[in-house]
Amino acid sequence: MNEVKRFAPGPRMSQAVLHGDLVILAGQVADDPQGDVGAQTAQVLAKIDRLLAEAGSSKALLLSVTVWLADISTFDQMNVVWDEWVDRQHAPARATVEARLALPQFLVEMQAIAARGSAGAS
Amino acid sequence: MNEVKRFAPGPRMSQAVLHGDLVILAGQVADDPQGDVGAQTAQVLAKIDRLLAEAGSSKALLLSVTVWLADISTFDQMNVVWDEWVDRQHAPARATVEARLALPQFLVEMQAIAARGSAGAS
Amino acid sequence: MNEVKRFAPGPRMSQAVLHGDLVILAGQVADDPQGDVGAQTAQVLAKIDRLLAEAGSSKALLLSVTVWLADISTFDQMNVVWDEWVDRQHAPARATVEARLALPQFLVEMQAIAARGSAGAS
Repeated sequence: MNEVKRFAPGPRMSQAVLHGDLVILAGQVADDPQGDVGAQTAQVLAKIDRLLAEAGSSKALLLSVTVWLADISTFDQMNVVWDEWVDRQHAPARATVEARLALPQFLVEMQAIAARGSAGAS
Repeated sequence: MNEVKRFAPGPRMSQAVLHGDLVILAGQVADDPQGDVGAQTAQVLAKIDRLLAEAGSSKALLLSVTVWLADISTFDQMNVVWDEWVDRQHAPARATVEARLALPQFLVEMQAIAARGSAGAS
Repeated sequence: MNEVKRFAPGPRMSQAVLHGDLVILAGQVADDPQGDVGAQTAQVLAKIDRLLAEAGSSKALLLSVTVWLADISTFDQMNVVWDEWVDRQHAPARATVEARLALPQFLVEMQAIAARGSAGAS
């Protein structure tokens, strides 16, 4: 159980880490942060999809997501995109708070924890 | 080990998720946010108690709690209620920072991670 | 698997918690917060090293770190110290956001999750 696998590793951080059947992703921000919070949310969720797939998981196996919004008044705009994306039968725990992010153009950052596995269980 | 169970599930998020023997709660805020930070903390902790019980856990099995305060200067007021509530022999790891929350009337939000089980171990 | 072990426990919180082979640390801040963000980061990372060692882990087994900076414009200064410290072959997932911390003199706080074990696996 001591094995730790890293995905998209770098010298400063890894984008995803797998230990046992727990997958922990790094905080994800938009690669192209020129769009509004909805556009950035879509990019962030697509990155989460890709990283979960790399680590052998998927959004149906999400356990929790922490959402940071640069401006909490964009909560509803973020949720429009989230609600389209999330697996409504297997929605994770979530917490959303406001925080300034690493660059001023970043409007949303999300960090996800998921189980590894191919099936979305009950 | 791939099974994920959800408690108080919704289409956007679940209030608690169980995987293996790890319980992760959604960020909890007061249902009635008209009170001060102490009153809201009491409501939040009561919700955490209920969700942990639903998921087969309890405060004696808390692993960590993240506390967000809308105003960090209310740290001591939050702690008065926390200190009354927490199992002093089995206190979790904790981090407390300031963040604006989803609605301006929310003064405190907490997210908890716990082990499942009936006994408070050493 | 229900056993929870606590390190540097207190009545309010424990500085580290071990469950299964998962180690969760409390948010760590500098013991002497008179220095700048680089000096405080060094203190925080040294405390993380000590707590991980107590819990039977090490930085090579870090899974994720949440970094809160009182001023996000100090991101690069924090990273200078982080980059020196982190195990570049085994870097964890990480998320860094801005937040006011418990005392105004605290410039950085970090919370770490790690696997227990003696070897830095791949």
